[in-house]
Amino acid sequence: MKSSTPVKIAMIGGGSWATALIKILSEGNSTIRWWLRSKADAEHIQKFHHNRSYLSDVQINPRKVKVCTKIREAIRDADFVILAVPAAFISEALTGLTPTHFAGKHVISAIKGMIPTSNQLVTDWMESTYNVPKNHLSCIAGPCHAEEVALEKQSYLTIASTGDDCARQVSDLLTCRFVQASPLNDLYGVEYSAVMKNIIALACGITHGLGYGDNFQAVLVSNAMQEIRRFVDAVYPMERDLSRSAYLGDLLVTAYSPFSRNRTFGTLIGRGYTIQSAQTEMNMIAEGYYAVRSIYAINSTYQVRMPIVDAVYRILYEGATPTAEMAQLKGKLV
Amino acid sequence: MKSSTPVKIAMIGGGSWATALIKILSEGNSTIRWWLRSKADAEHIQKFHHNRSYLSDVQINPRKVKVCTKIREAIRDADFVILAVPAAFISEALTGLTPTHFAGKHVISAIKGMIPTSNQLVTDWMESTYNVPKNHLSCIAGPCHAEEVALEKQSYLTIASTGDDCARQVSDLLTCRFVQASPLNDLYGVEYSAVMKNIIALACGITHGLGYGDNFQAVLVSNAMQEIRRFVDAVYPMERDLSRSAYLGDLLVTAYSPFSRNRTFGTLIGRGYTIQSAQTEMNMIAEGYYAVRSIYAINSTYQVRMPIVDAVYRILYEGATPTAEMAQLKGKLV
Repeated sequence: MKSSTPVKIAMIGGGSWATALIKILSEGNSTIRWWLRSKADAEHIQKFHHNRSYLSDVQINPRKVKVCTKIREAIRDADFVILAVPAAFISEALTGLTPTHFAGKHVISAIKGMIPTSNQLVTDWMESTYNVPKNHLSCIAGPCHAEEVALEKQSYLTIASTGDDCARQVSDLLTCRFVQASPLNDLYGVEYSAVMKNIIALACGITHGLGYGDNFQAVLVSNAMQEIRRFVDAVYPMERDLSRSAYLGDLLVTAYSPFSRNRTFGTLIGRGYTIQSAQTEMNMIAEGYYAVRSIYAINSTYQVRMPIVDAVYRILYEGATPTAEMAQLKGKLV
Repeated sequence: MKSSTPVKIAMIGGGSWATALIKILSEGNSTIRWWLRSKADAEHIQKFHHNRSYLSDVQINPRKVKVCTKIREAIRDADFVILAVPAAFISEALTGLTPTHFAGKHVISAIKGMIPTSNQLVTDWMESTYNVPKNHLSCIAGPCHAEEVALEKQSYLTIASTGDDCARQVSDLLTCRFVQASPLNDLYGVEYSAVMKNIIALACGITHGLGYGDNFQAVLVSNAMQEIRRFVDAVYPMERDLSRSAYLGDLLVTAYSPFSRNRTFGTLIGRGYTIQSAQTEMNMIAEGYYAVRSIYAINSTYQVRMPIVDAVYRILYEGATPTAEMAQLKGKLV
């Protein structure tokens, strides 16, 4: 991948993570077709070379990045297609595409959520819906705030795939001056962990909103790591070290960040907002809100002990009060 | 321990952690002799029922707590002796005591540091110096900011001992309305982790002071967990789950706290203060400063790969610049 022929990449999505990835990719020898749903945002980028809606300080290099609003055009010549829209919108974003459009391409999920209608991981859904073969599928894990990428703060990414070659190629694409990307052979473990970290961040927010302190949060996060391990070991057993950055680090950067959408959403719930008023207040989707429903549903098969996921589910979907749920949870942690 | 006869406890130390433990113990059925080095502080507590120097909002119950400035008097009738002074001062605090004074007593280390002159864990030192048998020795691990105990925020403690009965008894003593204490059979692992977390917090501070961000810190902490595991597995191999609160949680509450002395000390070093000026600025000891020297020395035997400990050691003791060391470390993390 460090060759002289530019790699052709399609970026699907116009949010902050997509913008950060564009910045990273622009450091290397790639040409990028950037699909944004918003025509106005796309036009603005074309004219002024920055995304007015997210990470607006990031300069977009027009020699490397071409924006477009037609999805077929975006992916037509691409070797790599990167998906970076919320999981709830990915199906709509790819409307009109068929397996033929993805033939021969690598697909990389930068999405930290599940397909809400089918409770599938994004890569599983790409395989079943678009026939993308497993060894052409990968996902990007942090720990990586988009905001810090914009500032060129040293960051690390993990590229997980079942195909060693695929993970290596994508890692090479994403390694640059301020980002070190490493391959890992645990697609399922990394993707599920990325989904679950948003639920945990939501739980951290709820307890924070209720007035629990840092001592409690440290215990909550420790117990969450054990809960994530029990779940991924049940769903996809393999030898894995969950203290790696891709698992633990990604959870930490989300659970401890006051900027995390999921944590903020949880804080509002903990403070007594209704779910609807919290969503209105934030004017955005907290991935964890959908994720917890999917993970809870999947766990009806595995029946792994997951007191934190259960508590968040009952608060968000069964009308349980945060105070009562967390008082119960308190006794289940150690 | 939940009997009607009050348990007799000696608390050695007058700092914030000692004060927090006094508050916790006062919730139960104990009588406490509280030794403080400072006569003035002791007199103040006797007169006004609060510690003017640390956690001054905590009310001291005079029916349960008697202050004293003579160490022999403090421990004479005690069933349990709790050590809560900085490791560097414990030897001085116990001056004049002999093994006879400790005969039959349980000794609990609430110290997160090593004996700097011998590179010993505090419990090892109590065993070799005062003949306290292993099964009468335990240590208290967090995650637990003293400040949050003062506010009665829900907290968790782990009591580690090689003696199951010992760990259970001490856990019972320390469980109260707002604290849940649990026993664990890994004295060495917990004690070494508690020591190492201060070094890691120091490293977090250094990188923060240098301008590294949250993405980097999450990777640093993940790598630190792996480094801690390699070390404790080498020094005292046994089956242990490092994502438990006693290990991971304790590290998190220290590494992510802006109030951590070790993190603050590191931040000053990262910003370019000399070691002496940082110590003067803080007017207190950062345990990690001594701990890193001990761990580094011990590791000369085990030769475990510990890039973070090595970097901190070279910065603090070999005059390496924080910028250069952390730039090197950057490439060793994943």
